[in-house]
Amino acid sequence: MTTFRHFYVKSTKGVTDAKKINLKDIPGTSGRLDIIARSINAAFWLSNNIRRNVVFHTILHGMPDPPVYIRFEGEKMRKISPDERSIILFILKALERTRENEVESTPGVFVSRKNFEKFIEENRDKKIYLLMEDGKPMKSINFKNERDYLFILGDNLDLSEEEKQIAIEAGATPVSIGKTSYLTSHCIVVINWYLDMLEREVE
Amino acid sequence: MTTFRHFYVKSTKGVTDAKKINLKDIPGTSGRLDIIARSINAAFWLSNNIRRNVVFHTILHGMPDPPVYIRFEGEKMRKISPDERSIILFILKALERTRENEVESTPGVFVSRKNFEKFIEENRDKKIYLLMEDGKPMKSINFKNERDYLFILGDNLDLSEEEKQIAIEAGATPVSIGKTSYLTSHCIVVINWYLDMLEREVE
Repeated sequence: MTTFRHFYVKSTKGVTDAKKINLKDIPGTSGRLDIIARSINAAFWLSNNIRRNVVFHTILHGMPDPPVYIRFEGEKMRKISPDERSIILFILKALERTRENEVESTPGVFVSRKNFEKFIEENRDKKIYLLMEDGKPMKSINFKNERDYLFILGDNLDLSEEEKQIAIEAGATPVSIGKTSYLTSHCIVVINWYLDMLEREVE
Repeated sequence: MTTFRHFYVKSTKGVTDAKKINLKDIPGTSGRLDIIARSINAAFWLSNNIRRNVVFHTILHGMPDPPVYIRFEGEKMRKISPDERSIILFILKALERTRENEVESTPGVFVSRKNFEKFIEENRDKKIYLLMEDGKPMKSINFKNERDYLFILGDNLDLSEEEKQIAIEAGATPVSIGKTSYLTSHCIVVINWYLDMLEREVE
């Protein structure tokens, strides 16, 4: 049985109108969707492969029309390159097709309107971890690999206290990869690598 | 005493004429300098800071005018953003100023003509590690923190056998972060994180 690794990264200011985003200045015009692009790179890419057991979720909370929920499914993704600009282009295609009910904007990429509370409600079946600098050290956690994992991370502006509370109430365990404050994308790289190591020890 | 972490990443096809690189298609026109940009992001960035004890080295071996050696020094870098496009712009500025003797093209970025053999010759004072999938497992290595480290990595096309031999003859220890083939940038994230963990245990 394959267990899945889900990652949720909040996009606090991610712009929700594709036309307002200038590809020549992604950090300056997209509400830091470059962070989301790097997080997607970190979640999926191996040297010559995509991690098929990863699902990446984000909710864009920026102007003019939030929230926009986007989900990337490794099993179904096609023709996406690992560079930031290529990944951003798939986010733009999703934004152009946003509506209330979910649509698959490109293979493996799904978009709809959904807020964080509803997202968590729909994912309570997973073992949820909330990344926090003062959480339990990762190496003290017994990753049992029985249920799919969902790791919840903030962007450069972090999650709100309310969002952390929603995750905790849904059973999330606060977990820390160290006292240093790492980039979100780097946290995802470390989590993927660490889980790879654990799985290899079991083999 | 601060020990430094040096990373060298080979750029097998990195284009050596800035005018030939189209920023709208970096992976397709730059000889995969996007890999170098992501490696630089991985080497230096923390959440709200640059790692001042990191030095990043690359040699571009692509057409029309190789080799071009570029060095980024964390202690001196200024005004570089973590996104790929911003980092590439600093590489382009270095390429525009390439000459035989070293010049500082922008703060903390140095460019000259140098091949791998000479680069290794100049860095024999460091404790050298050669990243290889079948090297010694990282956790079996006794990182003593007495000398500066130099980690040598290939890009998507790897190092040549001759280059690996040059590194080994200079005393490099082959080291592995796992049997999985990871992106170069992800290897750097893991090494930085792993060394952070070790330093914290010593504190």
